Amino acid sequence: MSDLARAYRYAVNVTPKPGILDPQGKAVERSLPHLGIDGVSGVRVGRRVEMVVAAADEAAARAVVDRLAGELLSNPLMELFEVEPLGEVGEAASADTGVRG
Amino acid sequence: MSDLARAYRYAVNVTPKPGILDPQGKAVERSLPHLGIDGVSGVRVGRRVEMVVAAADEAAARAVVDRLAGELLSNPLMELFEVEPLGEVGEAASADTGVRG
Repeated sequence: MSDLARAYRYAVNVTPKPGILDPQGKAVERSLPHLGIDGVSGVRVGRRVEMVVAAADEAAARAVVDRLAGELLSNPLMELFEVEPLGEVGEAASADTGVRG
Repeated sequence: MSDLARAYRYAVNVTPKPGILDPQGKAVERSLPHLGIDGVSGVRVGRRVEMVVAAADEAAARAVVDRLAGELLSNPLMELFEVEPLGEVGEAASADTGVRG
């Protein structure tokens, strides 16, 4: 327990690599005229995964998120990911009760 | 053309509302032990949509993104969205060639 004393929130933003076809983004662009929306281009649809990581310190938490993002949350052939720190949430135990799946 | 003289990048982050079941998030959590990853909880999987908006000024661009996020990119019954400004990219014409679908 003492090595998981702090908890941090992160988001992992996963987007299609430039040049990779993005059918969802194209579908959004094609529906814009029906909404009467003008001037929007370059739509890319990716994923955003938010989580709480309990760890000894921020560096340890960040290492866990980096591994998760690269090995499970993104496809390195087709996608880029970016880790976004969302701040410390306090004790690991209270963090667990604050965020529900 | 003169009323679409500037271009701004935005991301729209869409996440499941608190209390709404998130099967993808649960699937991620269940696969963590197989990766030997410990201490991760409260995983929520949403979408991230990035785009370029050409408009007369930032307020006009933001209004377009807010409408798009609420009417097309998110389901207001089950999801929350947050608009994240990513900065101005310059002339609308050059922005179009810089981001590909």
